[in-house]
Amino acid sequence: MEPRFGWLTPDTMGLFTDMYELTMADSYLRHGMNQWATFDLFVRHLPPNRAFLLNAGLEPVVYYLLHMRFPEESLNYLREQGIFSDAFLDYLRHFRFRGHVWAMPEGTVFFPGEPVLRVTAPRIQAQILETFLLNTVNAYVTFATKAARVVIAAQGRGVADFSPRRDHGTDAAIKVARASYIAGCVATSNVVAGHLFGIPITGTMAHSYVMSFPTELDAFRAYAADYPDNAVLLIDTYDTLQGARHAIIVAKELRARGHELRGVRIDSGDLVTLSRQVRRMLDEAGFPNVRIFLSGDLDEYRIEELLNAGAAVDAFGVGTRMGTSVDAPYVGGVYKLVEDEAGLKMKLSTGKVTLPGRKQVYRFYENGRMHHDLITLADEPAPPGGVPLLQEIIRDGELVTDLPSLSHIRERAAQQLAALPDPLRLIHVPEDIHYDVRISPALHDLRQRMIQRTREIEGIG
Amino acid sequence: MEPRFGWLTPDTMGLFTDMYELTMADSYLRHGMNQWATFDLFVRHLPPNRAFLLNAGLEPVVYYLLHMRFPEESLNYLREQGIFSDAFLDYLRHFRFRGHVWAMPEGTVFFPGEPVLRVTAPRIQAQILETFLLNTVNAYVTFATKAARVVIAAQGRGVADFSPRRDHGTDAAIKVARASYIAGCVATSNVVAGHLFGIPITGTMAHSYVMSFPTELDAFRAYAADYPDNAVLLIDTYDTLQGARHAIIVAKELRARGHELRGVRIDSGDLVTLSRQVRRMLDEAGFPNVRIFLSGDLDEYRIEELLNAGAAVDAFGVGTRMGTSVDAPYVGGVYKLVEDEAGLKMKLSTGKVTLPGRKQVYRFYENGRMHHDLITLADEPAPPGGVPLLQEIIRDGELVTDLPSLSHIRERAAQQLAALPDPLRLIHVPEDIHYDVRISPALHDLRQRMIQRTREIEGIG
Repeated sequence: MEPRFGWLTPDTMGLFTDMYELTMADSYLRHGMNQWATFDLFVRHLPPNRAFLLNAGLEPVVYYLLHMRFPEESLNYLREQGIFSDAFLDYLRHFRFRGHVWAMPEGTVFFPGEPVLRVTAPRIQAQILETFLLNTVNAYVTFATKAARVVIAAQGRGVADFSPRRDHGTDAAIKVARASYIAGCVATSNVVAGHLFGIPITGTMAHSYVMSFPTELDAFRAYAADYPDNAVLLIDTYDTLQGARHAIIVAKELRARGHELRGVRIDSGDLVTLSRQVRRMLDEAGFPNVRIFLSGDLDEYRIEELLNAGAAVDAFGVGTRMGTSVDAPYVGGVYKLVEDEAGLKMKLSTGKVTLPGRKQVYRFYENGRMHHDLITLADEPAPPGGVPLLQEIIRDGELVTDLPSLSHIRERAAQQLAALPDPLRLIHVPEDIHYDVRISPALHDLRQRMIQRTREIEGIG
Repeated sequence: MEPRFGWLTPDTMGLFTDMYELTMADSYLRHGMNQWATFDLFVRHLPPNRAFLLNAGLEPVVYYLLHMRFPEESLNYLREQGIFSDAFLDYLRHFRFRGHVWAMPEGTVFFPGEPVLRVTAPRIQAQILETFLLNTVNAYVTFATKAARVVIAAQGRGVADFSPRRDHGTDAAIKVARASYIAGCVATSNVVAGHLFGIPITGTMAHSYVMSFPTELDAFRAYAADYPDNAVLLIDTYDTLQGARHAIIVAKELRARGHELRGVRIDSGDLVTLSRQVRRMLDEAGFPNVRIFLSGDLDEYRIEELLNAGAAVDAFGVGTRMGTSVDAPYVGGVYKLVEDEAGLKMKLSTGKVTLPGRKQVYRFYENGRMHHDLITLADEPAPPGGVPLLQEIIRDGELVTDLPSLSHIRERAAQQLAALPDPLRLIHVPEDIHYDVRISPALHDLRQRMIQRTREIEGIG
């Protein structure tokens, strides 16, 4: 079942790029400008309602870098456009990534301005990668960050990804399943993601199941007979309290046969009141261990409200609003030239100034919590006590590190999220809360000199 | 380069489903409940800021229905879960869709409550399809509706999809390219989508290109030399007005060699003021036909503002905010049982009441504009003057109609959008604007009887 990432095959990955990457690349080739260049992938600003970002998507990026190709069919399509040089098409025919990649591991918390991935490669190679890298990392970080907030809001209760029917396509659904598992979700309803990544798969029943039997009680009895140890009954199809009474009847019948009902799910109505009523009914009937699952338009804000209001809930099924990251459906990750053979580079466009040069990011902890980060030039000596976040992943086109397993990535994410300063874990982030990201004196001075020099060269005020 | 849709192969499509579809299906099999049933796919409510929805996604749904399978690898994975019956796994081994599908063609405007797709099939088949159908249609309708609004806002100026780097994965990017082309965009930057669907591909240059040359003017000269008839120069890397002066120098040099500069692009800063200044500079220099492209965090709201404020612009590159449908990143499409062998079905959950039975939707026009829609039972006689929107697509698992070409779908969408009542074409939709969707008296009476009967059967007040 390879490839596992994005459903692209090595033969179709090459063309997953913006047109201008190819026209620029051809131009570089014509002008003899295929020397090495370095690009940083970073996020400029936090999305609304976010105090941190959670990195994910490196493994599919590595797969792409090691495997992307331009087969003849792709070259024929490009030739039909009538604008590419034969030399460039021949270059693509033999394309193989030969560059270096440094990156933060998946499951690392990061902040705006910090490079999460750095590519040093012949300029054409580094350029053509841009679209796929941004597409993958932007989507993964969006999903992982959103899911981390949902997991934090759930305060230890299990969160399952129920989003496939509303995600932006099949690839998005698979990325959401993997990203949300990294962020701490316990399972997904997405069967193919379970198969691809070994994520636990879960599910209950739909309203249509209940409606397919003559009565709700018939439906509950049938399901309990088929899944005596795994039955979670959906009790809100007609009337939730009536549904709870039917569930209790079935729980008693199951117990008489040596099984225990696993749970009930409520998907609509006043979840606080209903869950408390259902909890009391179950407890009074002798079923304190039957779990209550809540679902239906949930996200971190709603979960926080439910828990603050005293909802009786053991686990959440979270779909649409997590899978589309509805309150912040993108992070503005960019991929910018920071250095090439001619020297350091930076962009001055209004509001879009970049940090020049190859860089490293160090994290400083105090009492087990993140205290501040420091961005330095890559060749500065490591500051005492700082943990470097960027690791060498690919050298000369070859993988030079073992990529961690999904469970290791998930564990790293859990540690990182637990080390966040408390204010950054708030669901409603106060305006004045910012993590302290510092720039080394050497990098700061360099940036100032660069701004001055670029203005002089370009003859700008 | 098949399959073209969602990057899933027939062998992996089957498992793209929510876990509960499979546990319910197994239960249906065990209980001898695989008789025919009918499900409607519809949207309950308009997303915020939307007055209409644009249908898309049928072609990939048809591809899925005709090709989805469960190969041995998938069955082995399911067997490992330890909960499925051997009979069910054997059923999946021979799975082939044998049902009927009626649907609105792609490019049709539709409204909440109207079925856009209806599946009648053995219950297990109809059930297992749910996740893929919803994932595909929800994503496509989200993208097509958003893009239609952007195209309307542009008032005839070209809109190009520049979204791949921010879409939710590769499949999303490809769906955005196809959906936005259906909705009236003129091109995409997404090369693989161009290859897959024949959509025109387009692009200009990136800031990194400009920064890769010693000076901006060097970069412009190089690009113009390589693409003398297609050069669109990005002029805001350092200073937009300085960039415009450099572009004019290159435009003159091109003209001296018998070519014309195609355009300039501005991607940051005060787009209204800058575009007007640049337009005047170009005009005064003798280049009234050099086009001005604007980009940078655009959407329908921003485009409307720019045009109202008098921006000088010939075309827009629209990326992130269109591709993620940022103000409404999902439509709440659902797939509900409406009829089975035991009779008509409807759901009473709070706020989620459905319309029972197999239905048809008729559209009535007045003076070439949509006047109202009428939802009827499928077997009611066609009302005079009503245009039926649901068409038979698949009968007994076989395609019974020629699917329209992408250009035909795009033409249909253009006609439908042009026929919208003017208030529905507003970018800021007033609260009290609603298209008139009526329910036939027969359907209305049936629903009332069903509510009463269901309440009696379930013993609800």
